[in-house]
Parts: sequence; structure tokens; C-alpha cells
Amino acid sequence: MQATEQGRAIVERIEEICQLPAYRNRQLGLLTDLYQLTMMYGHFNSGNPDKRVVFDLFYRQNPCGNGYVIAAGLEQVVWYLYQLRFTDEDIAYLERLQMFSEEFLNRLRDFRFTGTLHAVPEGTLVFPNEPLLRFEGNIFELQLIESAVLSFINHQSLIATKAQRIVHAARTNGARPSAPVIEMGLRRAQNADASIFGARAAYIGGCVGTSNVLAGQSFDIPVMGTQGHSWIQSFSSELDAFRAYAESFPNNVALLVDTYDVLKSGIPHAITVAKELEAQGKRLQSIRIDSGDLAYLSKRARKLLDEAGLHDVAIIASSDLDEYTIRELILQGAEITSWGVGTHLITSYDCPALGAVYKLVAQYEDGVLKPTIKVSENPAKVTNPGKKRVLRLYDKGYASADLIVLDGEQLNPGEPLELFHPVHTYKRKVLRDYEAQELLQPIFLNGKLVYHLPAIKAIRRHTEDSMSRFPSEVLRPVNPHIYHVDLSQQLWDLKQDLLHEFRPDAQPQK
Amino acid sequence: MQATEQGRAIVERIEEICQLPAYRNRQLGLLTDLYQLTMMYGHFNSGNPDKRVVFDLFYRQNPCGNGYVIAAGLEQVVWYLYQLRFTDEDIAYLERLQMFSEEFLNRLRDFRFTGTLHAVPEGTLVFPNEPLLRFEGNIFELQLIESAVLSFINHQSLIATKAQRIVHAARTNGARPSAPVIEMGLRRAQNADASIFGARAAYIGGCVGTSNVLAGQSFDIPVMGTQGHSWIQSFSSELDAFRAYAESFPNNVALLVDTYDVLKSGIPHAITVAKELEAQGKRLQSIRIDSGDLAYLSKRARKLLDEAGLHDVAIIASSDLDEYTIRELILQGAEITSWGVGTHLITSYDCPALGAVYKLVAQYEDGVLKPTIKVSENPAKVTNPGKKRVLRLYDKGYASADLIVLDGEQLNPGEPLELFHPVHTYKRKVLRDYEAQELLQPIFLNGKLVYHLPAIKAIRRHTEDSMSRFPSEVLRPVNPHIYHVDLSQQLWDLKQDLLHEFRPDAQPQK
Repeated sequence: MQATEQGRAIVERIEEICQLPAYRNRQLGLLTDLYQLTMMYGHFNSGNPDKRVVFDLFYRQNPCGNGYVIAAGLEQVVWYLYQLRFTDEDIAYLERLQMFSEEFLNRLRDFRFTGTLHAVPEGTLVFPNEPLLRFEGNIFELQLIESAVLSFINHQSLIATKAQRIVHAARTNGARPSAPVIEMGLRRAQNADASIFGARAAYIGGCVGTSNVLAGQSFDIPVMGTQGHSWIQSFSSELDAFRAYAESFPNNVALLVDTYDVLKSGIPHAITVAKELEAQGKRLQSIRIDSGDLAYLSKRARKLLDEAGLHDVAIIASSDLDEYTIRELILQGAEITSWGVGTHLITSYDCPALGAVYKLVAQYEDGVLKPTIKVSENPAKVTNPGKKRVLRLYDKGYASADLIVLDGEQLNPGEPLELFHPVHTYKRKVLRDYEAQELLQPIFLNGKLVYHLPAIKAIRRHTEDSMSRFPSEVLRPVNPHIYHVDLSQQLWDLKQDLLHEFRPDAQPQK
Repeated sequence: MQATEQGRAIVERIEEICQLPAYRNRQLGLLTDLYQLTMMYGHFNSGNPDKRVVFDLFYRQNPCGNGYVIAAGLEQVVWYLYQLRFTDEDIAYLERLQMFSEEFLNRLRDFRFTGTLHAVPEGTLVFPNEPLLRFEGNIFELQLIESAVLSFINHQSLIATKAQRIVHAARTNGARPSAPVIEMGLRRAQNADASIFGARAAYIGGCVGTSNVLAGQSFDIPVMGTQGHSWIQSFSSELDAFRAYAESFPNNVALLVDTYDVLKSGIPHAITVAKELEAQGKRLQSIRIDSGDLAYLSKRARKLLDEAGLHDVAIIASSDLDEYTIRELILQGAEITSWGVGTHLITSYDCPALGAVYKLVAQYEDGVLKPTIKVSENPAKVTNPGKKRVLRLYDKGYASADLIVLDGEQLNPGEPLELFHPVHTYKRKVLRDYEAQELLQPIFLNGKLVYHLPAIKAIRRHTEDSMSRFPSEVLRPVNPHIYHVDLSQQLWDLKQDLLHEFRPDAQPQK
């Protein structure tokens, strides 16, 4: 009975999500690489499209010199899998390519995702080489979904991580109060989805809001914004423009002061308007500076405002900011109370792609799950074989290491656990009294959604909680301490065995 | 009568485009920055939302050290403007924000784009500071559309330009035949639209096709692809995997040879399959190398294939390529016949944003069009005032300079024309016998679409044509010759006058 109610709530939630403007009516059946379809066709023709396999999604390197990634994009993956279909038009297009048989296209007509997915919840800190998503299902379906799933996870995790780097910089201000960061990159985003899902990821990563109204509408993110230079220019004077704005938004007056000259024109006019507001019992909320020397201008602006008794007026800065310029401005004593960040955040400018991959790690043969490995000349590209779980080990309350284990393995937290470096195996560490947290949660079981997608505010809180369990050395954006992701002895042994077995000269040469 | 027929063809074409999977059912009314809506509300309350104004869209700096940008994204802009509406749900969301009056929201309910747009056709080479799009209409509408239009043009123009840089590298191979470039970045794209519209832009920029099936379906771009490593791994041997693929696609066999070992396993197995195909009167088409030392491996692979009499088998390379690695590989004599490029192309990795801006340049006051200027501490950020046209001046068949003129100005190509540098005005040049081409074409006139959106193959040809009119020094990707964009004397004089008039201390202090 309880299970049924929970099931109903899960379905209601995903149906609600399907109606959000960011998702509604999108038909992304063909959002895949052609080679996924040709491989599916090959499996179909070879008679084993229903072979059950396991794929891991993981990344190999943290972006931007960061020490971790914030997992994001799962909601979009769930939506995609939940509603994935081929339309008649999709089938007609594939027919026109003249590559596929009618039988194959008929199978696509009935396509539904029937696989099993375990995933790390959004907002969780994750590290290189550990599975963020683990799919189990038939190879026909799991091949199709690779490209879109990677794009969603790569994009949102990247932007959430970049946002947190910027938020971290804005919060690291000695003993002074930290300043919030607002995402405002729509105009420089790599098209509509990048702006919409990027704003979502930025909020998960710690921004307080976005300028993007569609993202606000879709994801219940606070929307923020005041006026642009064209507003000021469209009036015969800056003061007229300020007054007109104050009339429209008497309770939330924020004035852009750099259209002509911040110190000679913008601030004096803003002070005039603030005094006029005071006479009506209202307050000027903030000013925004969008160009020029932000350190100098913000300090001078603060002084002028303070001299006019406007100590509570906030100073918002924007203008090609990123985590490095924000740190520099703080070090120079800039008087900035909130930051609007665009281009560098919404594109993750210095590292615009996260390289997550999706690798076959096990397949059933005659009912038995057999691990597979992808070897490579480059040792960093050798995959971890088999169906696996990820455990986060906490020692005295803090995350101490992640441990990848084989699916069937059980730890006994009562006993000491010896961890070792997966490459430099002499590096060892014993945990005596630890807690183990299972990172991969069930999302779909044989096509059935079993995960209640959380509200975005809960995800954002989960980011904070997840971070609060790590020492600050792991969290710092520059030269972070490298957090360990180790393999269990069983998994390590399996990997070595397979590596020896798969030497190319041992390949069957039929 | 003819006009009516043309009008009908224009409408049929845009209606057809509205049904493409990339566009269909998207509701992007709220894809805007909140400050656009607050400014619209301010104009609405100030009683002048219908004031006619002119906005220019232009960029200031070429990306990636390139000498030009390829204009792209106009189709998406036209689609957006053509179908732009607010849904009941959009209005309900804005109501919940408790910022706007009911009268304002009612005006949004009836929103239609009724403005005029002139634009440079897609595939045209464009340069810094010249308008790519020029909007004329009421400030209420033109404020709303700024953010989305910028995102579409910034993204597609950036990717088209990056694609051409990569294509240029692949074509610059001494006396040897040039190798085609295939876009395959879906999994690393910044979400779905970035992959779909990025694939479109890459094709406009010169790629021969994409791996992205939805982009192929939407835009009639050739789709390409073969198999991934998981295909090979899912068989008990590489040879079995190759044979199974050849059975499914006997007329287009491309084999991925780097899963285990290119030279010891992949190529020998590919040769075995090629011989089996020969026995059936068929040919192996190509092999693909996706990792390792591409220079070394491709040369060795070529030798092995040639020794087996497989001179016609193509060698496709992929693996984190960009224009620089392609140039290096060519210089090292790599035997690569086509290039698959992913991450670096689809994100424009080394420069992931084009900074186009949208600036108010003129407004009607009492029926008279008055130019406006945006001054700045930074001289490069001072805008060119007024309603303008852009002329491309051809001298002996080659583009010699672009000239920005005021809307009413007429050139007389019979008479010598003196051009001068807009900053270093002593630098002068006289054109005696030139042709002038009008770059800005009418797209919408008072809300009516008057432009027949071309097919993508025509756009791609237009890129080639547009490039063929420039000297190679402008087109080279490294240290290009700087192409001049000059202002007419009238425009230059107007700009100087306004700059003097708009000194901040001359601002009216009411």
C-alpha cells in the first residue's frame, strides 16, 4: 500500500517535470550518434540485441584544476529515458537513409527504455574514475542512449562545478561577509539549452539565482535583473531613466550607473533618486557597475554612497568576471556586495567540456555476468571492469576516501579496512572506525522509475551538505588536495587478471 | 501576382522549418533575461513602449585569432521571431513573480513580433564592428528579443567559424588532396541544442557531415558513423566483431581498429575482412583510428594496407583533434584521409564564446530619427551611432574593405572613393574602380517575413563563394591579414559630434 503511494508520487513528479517548459514536447529520439544506430542494427542482425550488459559513465579528469566535480544532470537523464520514443517521422527519416531493414525499424517503433539505472544523486561531489551512472540492460537500448546521456551529464556537471568555483571565490573574503553570485550568461551561452540547463546547474552549484526567465520558470530558480544600458540611453537623461525605473519598481530599485561616467554622473544621480525615495519612505536597493576598473570604482562608489548616508545600498559588479578576477578584486579591497557572472560561468570558459565517457564493463554470457575491460596504450584509459558499487568512507565525520568495490562485495565497518593506491600500491592507509555510504542509488529498475526526483532547492542543499563532509583542502579551487578513489582488493585483482588475459597477442586469431 | 506567389513560398518555407524536430513545439517566449522584462515594464509604465528604435547586433573581436567570422544562426532567429508568443502558463508564471501589472501582462498575451530586420545572409564572412543584424521597431519588442537572438547568433557563428578553421587545416596539405572533416561532438556538447545547432553551423562552416542524427534529420546534413569500442568488446573477438559489422553493412564497411592494438590486431583483422569482402566482389571502405600516436599509426597502417593491395581503403582519424593537431599531423606526413572532430569543434574549445552585443543606435523622437551613442572609458567599446548599412567593396574581383555608411548615403561607383582608418585616420586608400555589395538584406518588414530561407546546401555553398572573394591572407587561421572595416566620412563626422556632445559633464543635471 505504502509502496503504491510512493510509486504514485514518483510518477506524479516525473509527469510534472515532463510539462516544464524546458522539457515539454521535446522529441529527442534521434539525438544520438549514427554509430549507435548502426551498432544497434548490427546487434539486431547478429541475433543478440537483447544481450544484457553493464555500462559505466565516469570521467577521468577534474575540470579547471578543481579537486572534484559536482554531479548534475540526472533529472534530465531521467526525463529523457522516461519519455524516449521514436516518432513516425523519425522512422521515416531512418528509412530514407536506406541503411536499415524494416524489421529493425519496426523494433524502433516499439522502443521503450526497459533498463536499470543506478546513479549518484545530483549535488553529490564525485571524483575521477568512479561510476556516476551505472546502466544495466540490453545492449540495443544502452547503445542508443549513450550520446544524449553523456551530453546532459557532461554539460550540467561541468557548469555546476564551474559555478561552485566562482561561488567559492566570492565567499573567500577574509573575515568579511560573503557575496552572492548571480548567473547571467544567456546571451553568450551555446544556444538555448546551454543557457537553460546551465542556469539550473549553476544554481545547484551555489549561485543564488539567474537572469534567465525560462530557467526560472522551469526549475523554480529565483530570477534577478534590473536594467541595461539601452534603458538609460532611451531617456533624454540618466536621471530621468533612474526616476522612471524607480517609479515602476519602487520596492526594488537597482540602478545601472556606468552608462556615461560612474563617479561623475551615475552615482550622483543614484544618490538624488535615493533621497527622493527616502522622502517617500522607500530605499534604494543597489547600484550596478558593468565596466571599468571595478576595484577603484566600487571603493569610490562606496565612499560616495556612505557619505550620503546610504550605507545599506548594495554594489553589484558584472563585466567578464570569473573566479580569478573575483579573487583579485577581493584582494584589492573592492567594495562589492554581489557578483553577476556571465560568459565565463555559462560556458566554463577555461575548460568548456567535461570528458565523461560511457564504457562497457560487463556482459552476460549464458546467464553469467562476465566483466570486460578496455585496454589502452595509455594506462589512465584502462577501464575498471565489472559491475561495481562506490562507497564513500567517512572517518571522524569527514570523507576520507572513496572505494570502488565489486557488486557482491560486503564491507564490515566493525573491522579495520586497508586501502591502497590503485597504481602506487605501496601507498597504504588503514581505516579503523569508519562509516560507508553507498553512492549509487536505484533510479530505474527494469524500466520502472523508482526514484523520486528531488526539488531543486533540496538538490542545492545536498551540494552544501555533500561539501560540508570534505576537508577544505579538497574543496579549494587552486592546488586542491587529491582525494583518493581506491579499488577493493577483489576489484584490483580482477583488473590485473583481465589485463594479462587481454594482451593483444593473446587475442584469438580465427 | 508574382509577389503573392513569392510570399506564399516564403510562408511555406518557414512553416516547414517550424515543423523540423530541432524547432518544433519549442516555446521560448521566456527565453530572455529578466531585465528585458523589467525594462519593457518600465517603458510600458512610462507611456512609451511603442517608441521606434534601431538596434545593431555586432561583435568586437574575432575568435581564436581568426581573421573573420562566418555569420550563422539567422534561420533560428527568423524561426524564433516568427513564432514568438507567450503561453497562458508563461503569463501565469510572470504573475506569480508579483512584479508586473495586469495591463502589462495583457499586452504580453497579444505579443507578436512586428518589427523590421535586416541581416547578413548565413555563410557570409563578417568582421568586427559591422552590424550583422539591424532591428528597427518598437522598444517594447526589441528589448524582449535581445538575449535569445544574441545566444543564437553568437553560438552558431562561433561554431561555423571554428569549423572552417579546422577544415582549412585539413585542406592545407601541400600538393596532396585535402581530407574532409566530420563533426562528431554530440557527447561533449553543452547540451542538446549546442549539439544540434552546432552540427548545423559546422556544416555551414565546411564540415562534410555530422554524427548527430537529429541534426541530420532537422537540417538535411549528411550523417556519418560506424562503430564504437563497445561494439568490438561485445564480441568474443575483434575479428568476429568486424565480420558481424560487414554483414550488416556490406556496402559501407568501416572498421574501428584500435580497441586492442592497431598494428598487431586491428589492421590484420581488417585485412582479413577486406579479403573476405573481395571474395564477394565488395570492398572495405575505411578503417578508423581513435587513439594513440596518429602520425605513426596511420603511416604504418597505410603501409600494411597497401602491402595487402588495399590502396583505396581510407584512414579516418579521431581523438581530441583540433586545427593545430591536424596541422602537426599533416606536417609529420600522417596518412589520414578524413578527420573526425568532436570536443574542440563542438565547444570551440579554445574560445567558447563569441561576444556579439546588441546596442541601441538610434531612436525616433517626434518622428525624427536621432542617432545615439554608447560612450565608454574603453575606446573599442564606443558604438557606431545611427541607422546604417554595410557595403562590401570589391576591387578587381577581390573584397578590398567593408564600408559602414549611414542609411541614406549613396556611393557613386563611377567616382574614386577615399577610405580611411576609423582610428588612425591618416591611413588612407583610394578605390578607383570598385563594385559595392549591400550586405544587410531585408528579412522582416514590419513583422512580415520577406526572406526566403535558403536550403542548408545553398548556405554552405555561399560560405565557399563568400570566402573565394577574399585573398588567402585574410583567410589563413594563423596571423591573418587584418581586413579593414571603415566608416564613411558622414558616419565618422556624426560619431565625433556625438562623442563631444555626450561628455559626462555635459549631461543634463535636472
